[in-house]
Amino acid sequence: MEPPLLESQRASLDEKTFGTDDDARLVKRQSVELFSTENPLKLAGGQEIGPIRVAYEMYGTLSPAKDNAFFICHALTGDAHAAGRYNLEDRKPGWWDEFIGPGRGIDTDRFCVICANVLGGCQGTTGPSCIDPKTGEPYGLNFPFITIADIVHVHKELVSYLGIKKLAGAIGGSLGGMQVLEWIAQDPDAIENAIVLASAANLSAQGIAFNAVGRRAIYADPQFHNGGYYDRAEEVSVQSDHPPNAPQSTVSKTGKGPRFGLALARMIAHITYLSESSIEKKFGRRLQNSEQLAFDLMRETEFQIESYLHYQGEQFVERFDANSYLYLTKAMDYFDLAESYHGLNNALGNTSARTLVASYTTDWLFPTAQSREIVSALILAGKHASFCELESPYGHDAFLVEVQQLTELVRAFLNS
Amino acid sequence: MEPPLLESQRASLDEKTFGTDDDARLVKRQSVELFSTENPLKLAGGQEIGPIRVAYEMYGTLSPAKDNAFFICHALTGDAHAAGRYNLEDRKPGWWDEFIGPGRGIDTDRFCVICANVLGGCQGTTGPSCIDPKTGEPYGLNFPFITIADIVHVHKELVSYLGIKKLAGAIGGSLGGMQVLEWIAQDPDAIENAIVLASAANLSAQGIAFNAVGRRAIYADPQFHNGGYYDRAEEVSVQSDHPPNAPQSTVSKTGKGPRFGLALARMIAHITYLSESSIEKKFGRRLQNSEQLAFDLMRETEFQIESYLHYQGEQFVERFDANSYLYLTKAMDYFDLAESYHGLNNALGNTSARTLVASYTTDWLFPTAQSREIVSALILAGKHASFCELESPYGHDAFLVEVQQLTELVRAFLNS
Repeated sequence: MEPPLLESQRASLDEKTFGTDDDARLVKRQSVELFSTENPLKLAGGQEIGPIRVAYEMYGTLSPAKDNAFFICHALTGDAHAAGRYNLEDRKPGWWDEFIGPGRGIDTDRFCVICANVLGGCQGTTGPSCIDPKTGEPYGLNFPFITIADIVHVHKELVSYLGIKKLAGAIGGSLGGMQVLEWIAQDPDAIENAIVLASAANLSAQGIAFNAVGRRAIYADPQFHNGGYYDRAEEVSVQSDHPPNAPQSTVSKTGKGPRFGLALARMIAHITYLSESSIEKKFGRRLQNSEQLAFDLMRETEFQIESYLHYQGEQFVERFDANSYLYLTKAMDYFDLAESYHGLNNALGNTSARTLVASYTTDWLFPTAQSREIVSALILAGKHASFCELESPYGHDAFLVEVQQLTELVRAFLNS
Repeated sequence: MEPPLLESQRASLDEKTFGTDDDARLVKRQSVELFSTENPLKLAGGQEIGPIRVAYEMYGTLSPAKDNAFFICHALTGDAHAAGRYNLEDRKPGWWDEFIGPGRGIDTDRFCVICANVLGGCQGTTGPSCIDPKTGEPYGLNFPFITIADIVHVHKELVSYLGIKKLAGAIGGSLGGMQVLEWIAQDPDAIENAIVLASAANLSAQGIAFNAVGRRAIYADPQFHNGGYYDRAEEVSVQSDHPPNAPQSTVSKTGKGPRFGLALARMIAHITYLSESSIEKKFGRRLQNSEQLAFDLMRETEFQIESYLHYQGEQFVERFDANSYLYLTKAMDYFDLAESYHGLNNALGNTSARTLVASYTTDWLFPTAQSREIVSALILAGKHASFCELESPYGHDAFLVEVQQLTELVRAFLNS
């Protein structure tokens, strides 16, 4: 599974790039090619893939003993840019910037934080929008079927490449939490502190249902072309060995592809990320641009909630690849720790990790009962497990939104 | 608003058709033309429409004093065929057959039950799939914008046409409950017993959101053709003055129209009708036709829940018109009793109706809090109001599924 690293790969590691600029917290994206045509990654579904380029970022300084690495597993549509800014002009920092940094929840004065784009993604790591070396064309639907176990294999290979024998910690919410769970199941001694937020040991039937309708919206888009919608010329650049400092998405910006279907999939999913009460409070029945109802069937953004969802859909297609969405939601559907490891106790019973599991009161996509199931399995196996149901009105999104609360919880857990 | 009935219309009433055949409970669909080009219905949005053909059914016998009529307001995709069978070969009876009949929850030995397809629908009452007499073509998106107030106006006109001065009762779930609420607000003394199930005084932001993504799926379907997808030849038959006994849907059977978009809209909506626990219990993560996962991205019906949703979508497009879905979901979005009547107390405070409001514990689309809001307004206004939160695992669908429970509740209410 893990072929030895080539010396040329090791040599490309530049220790000086690990640190962040403490004042501006400037960071840079790095990338490395792991596996190869000769030593491909064997996937859970039976296929193979290699080489795999992995985009990742590191914040903080790796200790000489390399025992302070903390891995961030991102959620469905996240990327490796979890914290900091690429340059001083960047309007927005990484997606979990408030939580990761000097003195923050994941303290970069103490830990060296690593975040990598997942296998199958579209933000620098090999995925369906990348060139298949066998054909010279983007993979499209020829990209092999992947699971969360495969995603974790690639993460582990990156960690090994970085010379890290054991992670001080790993944390993730939603699909990220599934990766953390899979990691301690696959390699029970790989992580000292495992933190699982708003997640589950398997995706519920309701979760599968929402993913299925989202994928169907993409399949149905006439611009889907069975996954072969890429503009070839654009894709090549991200495959170079020297990615630019600011990340280039592999998503086509030309307006091609199933933009409508992907936006619709995102709109549907976005509703499930919000709680009924937060959506009611934030938008209610307020109108977007008028005091009065228009009595116009075709006005699609009359209510603020409609306008918000349209905006979310439009933004999303600018940064995400439809094929990646298909592959990653399917990986999520397939995730079932108990099924893969012949029982949840078997999956989690061997780990030496200290675990923290947290759910959110208004998260109906990953309800608290699913977190309790994980904790029960750990405790039944005599493992150390902390559990907390956090009070929040923000639904599934809470793990990204409620940073202060999470900071306190994680800090207490890591210091205890 | 309510032009006098023409004698020719009254004359078409055939008292003998009201009764059901007690053994087989055979029923027949009737239809009547209300309003006219000269006396059109003035709609809430400012437009006018007339004539309006209304398809309806009656079960039980209207008393000589015509004081035992009980009106059934159907939900979003329902129709006038609430109970009984059209002929002995019919495989399925009407949609609420277990609840309506001799000795049942709505007892046809006591009440004469009326159920009419709503304005804008596609099951015999004038809607976007019907011929616009001004153009000789199906209305399509030239059909005027309609609200629940307009739907209720047409119901009232039907009741008046039948010579009924006051209804003994009216009942409806979901969109049907909205009609009952609008009815007692519009005409406070029109109904003796008003029963509102799994409904609300306005649609929540989350409800608007789900409707909006469903409509977007239809708009995006290349077969939508801006609503002009009808096969003209098929439409004419349902406009005849002598509809066949078995109802002819106005839905095209030719495979034209935005079938894919409509099916997707239905799949999305269907998820919201089920509770998380019922979907988990009924389907869980079970596979449809295999013991093993296929690791195949394009297999869309691998999990049972996926297969079920696909089936629901496919069935739905055979019986429902996409334009009707657009108009009726929009009417639902617009429903806001407090907004229309300057406060909920104002809307409900004048009614002489005895009211029963019931919600379901696992209904997350129309949560109990929304029912409580209705009841609070009634009680604050000093009105008689009964409220019950019914225990059920079936989510929003419970009002259609939990017939025994509902029967007991409604019987107790009507007998008290």
